[in-house]
Amino acid sequence: TTQFSFSDHPHRRYNPLTGDWVLVSPHRAKRPWQGMTEDSHWEDSPSYDPHCYLCPGNTRANGMTNKSYTETFVFDNDFAALTADTPAASSDDPLFQFASESGTCRVICFSADHSKTLPLLNQQEMYAVVRTWCEQLEELGARYPWVQIFENKGAMIGCSNPHPHGQIWAQPHLPALVAREHAHQTEYLQTHKKPMLLDYVTRELTKEERLVDQSEHWVALVPYWAAWPFETLLLPRAHRPRLTDLSDAEKADLATILQRLATRYDNLFQCSFPYSMGWHGAPFDQSDPAPWQVHAHYFPPLLRSASVRKFMVGYEMMAESQRDITPEQAAQQLRDQPTQHFRTTTA
Amino acid sequence: TTQFSFSDHPHRRYNPLTGDWVLVSPHRAKRPWQGMTEDSHWEDSPSYDPHCYLCPGNTRANGMTNKSYTETFVFDNDFAALTADTPAASSDDPLFQFASESGTCRVICFSADHSKTLPLLNQQEMYAVVRTWCEQLEELGARYPWVQIFENKGAMIGCSNPHPHGQIWAQPHLPALVAREHAHQTEYLQTHKKPMLLDYVTRELTKEERLVDQSEHWVALVPYWAAWPFETLLLPRAHRPRLTDLSDAEKADLATILQRLATRYDNLFQCSFPYSMGWHGAPFDQSDPAPWQVHAHYFPPLLRSASVRKFMVGYEMMAESQRDITPEQAAQQLRDQPTQHFRTTTA
Ligand SMILES: O=P(O)(O)O[C@H]1O[C@H](CO)[C@@H](O)[C@H](O)[C@H]1O
Ligand SMILES: O=P(O)(O)O[C@H]1O[C@H](CO)[C@@H](O)[C@H](O)[C@H]1O
Repeated sequence: TTQFSFSDHPHRRYNPLTGDWVLVSPHRAKRPWQGMTEDSHWEDSPSYDPHCYLCPGNTRANGMTNKSYTETFVFDNDFAALTADTPAASSDDPLFQFASESGTCRVICFSADHSKTLPLLNQQEMYAVVRTWCEQLEELGARYPWVQIFENKGAMIGCSNPHPHGQIWAQPHLPALVAREHAHQTEYLQTHKKPMLLDYVTRELTKEERLVDQSEHWVALVPYWAAWPFETLLLPRAHRPRLTDLSDAEKADLATILQRLATRYDNLFQCSFPYSMGWHGAPFDQSDPAPWQVHAHYFPPLLRSASVRKFMVGYEMMAESQRDITPEQAAQQLRDQPTQHFRTTTA
Repeated sequence: TTQFSFSDHPHRRYNPLTGDWVLVSPHRAKRPWQGMTEDSHWEDSPSYDPHCYLCPGNTRANGMTNKSYTETFVFDNDFAALTADTPAASSDDPLFQFASESGTCRVICFSADHSKTLPLLNQQEMYAVVRTWCEQLEELGARYPWVQIFENKGAMIGCSNPHPHGQIWAQPHLPALVAREHAHQTEYLQTHKKPMLLDYVTRELTKEERLVDQSEHWVALVPYWAAWPFETLLLPRAHRPRLTDLSDAEKADLATILQRLATRYDNLFQCSFPYSMGWHGAPFDQSDPAPWQVHAHYFPPLLRSASVRKFMVGYEMMAESQRDITPEQAAQQLRDQPTQHFRTTTA
């Protein structure tokens, strides 16, 4: 009888943060791809674009003018999905349940330079981004229980402007996925007397096979339960429930590893690697922050090359996520990348 | 003070099948779109393509030859995500939990005609598809607790061959999303003494505002909790836990409404409307089928036109699904479409 092998046989892995499962079909990476391909050649853009609504000094669609900023710049989204003054309303009819939602949506420009992306920022510029995230969390966290920081990078993932930027949405309710992470981490702490992701990072540091990068205070890895081909999880070694709990040294170190991770991604397929990323940490409500370990998720769509993506459709939409290459194989590929960006290598 | 309005104010709606929430931001439909657009003009293909691996009589990549079929044709997927002979293995370590998975993956060709799509089949051809689905459920359901029938239509949603076809994956475990629907429907029946979706369809028939189409035995609607812009739910009026519980008249009637729904979709933006669709019904395990009402989900990516799609990224990946137009507005637009296909209208 054949022995089970993680790199040969279909299996399901459990995501302890969300309670979901992912189907891993390692042997399937061999199938030929005849479907849609993407155009993701490197586009050189100017440092300043007079038509960009995020460049310093430019006027936006709604007539407002951007500050002449040099590092980061934050403003309220002109087409916000959440509004501060939503009238209260709700129903708990089991089949037609709803609740009105208020909130604030902001845009954060990462750099004044239109041509840059995060991996091309220097350490000091990246550190400014980290500090801005923390300031926004302090400010919005004082008013809202949930503050979602995220970045959509690249046209393939739905980003509509190449100027380096992210978003921040703040609201009174815990969003669905966050509520699930909250419940699972709370239960884990009760049962195991340790924060789930602190236990997890400790064990991954011993196992090594899913590690991508490490710095003094941070670890980047492909989680055991990764759904997207090159999904990663970035988290601190020490117990830190929120980004706002970090020391200055931990923030500066975060800037370094963020930049290195983004560089590994770009180097993997020699392109500006598209992804959606975002931060999860303890909510700013009355709940105990102890079960939480702050972490960033990176969900990148590419699968085999700069032009072939993974489609999370069909079986994935109806049943559960499915992946072809194993998390261990993906980690190996990312770990093997140089941390010098392929566009800036000097001879 | 302003009165709350579903078509003006942000709110969250609850999905009782999955326990998830969706953020509805109706006012946001007004924002301009400067991001990626898709090329989805109508492509006329030949009725037979000698290079297609699904056309009758052709030889596939693995050397097998397709039957000279005339209606539907089912075969085992040459690059199956699940294999019948997977060795057993598992671990219940809370952070590294896995279980090996066996199963069968099949391809179902909907028509011998390479140039067709479901909305272009006639009633008899569509009826053959419904009967083939039911035969496959009978056969695979005798061996596997879960049989997932689905279709990825269009290159935009990851379909790699234009020949009209769908897939069937069968496996021993209930996939994550199915397990969630199972738990919520079971709980609803216990509490309310009626199957959830039977209650739901009855109430929607009275409310009317989310109805898209109706036939003698079937109802198509945009669910109250729809996440995708033009998402629909197709379900019978009477209590039927599985497709295999349908009478011949109900199957024939299903063929009619499936065809009309697909036609409304194509007519909406005058294109071959891309979507992922799939069937959910009571599992073929020892559990009581009574809580279940069989239903099809349609998850189409298009938002505003044949070339502008909704990206479920960023906030959606980190927090929860978000939509711009309301389910009621989407239902109205689909309801307003003619049921005669725009390509076949005779003068
Ligand atoms: O099997 P196909 O059509 O080649 O592939 C498509 O459907 C599969 C099942 O939903 C997905 O896993 C793939 O990501 C998608 O591209
Ligand atoms: O706000 P943007 O960048 O215009 O839009 C993008 O990010 C949003 C937040 O994740 C999503 O809701 C949109 O679907 C996506 O296209």
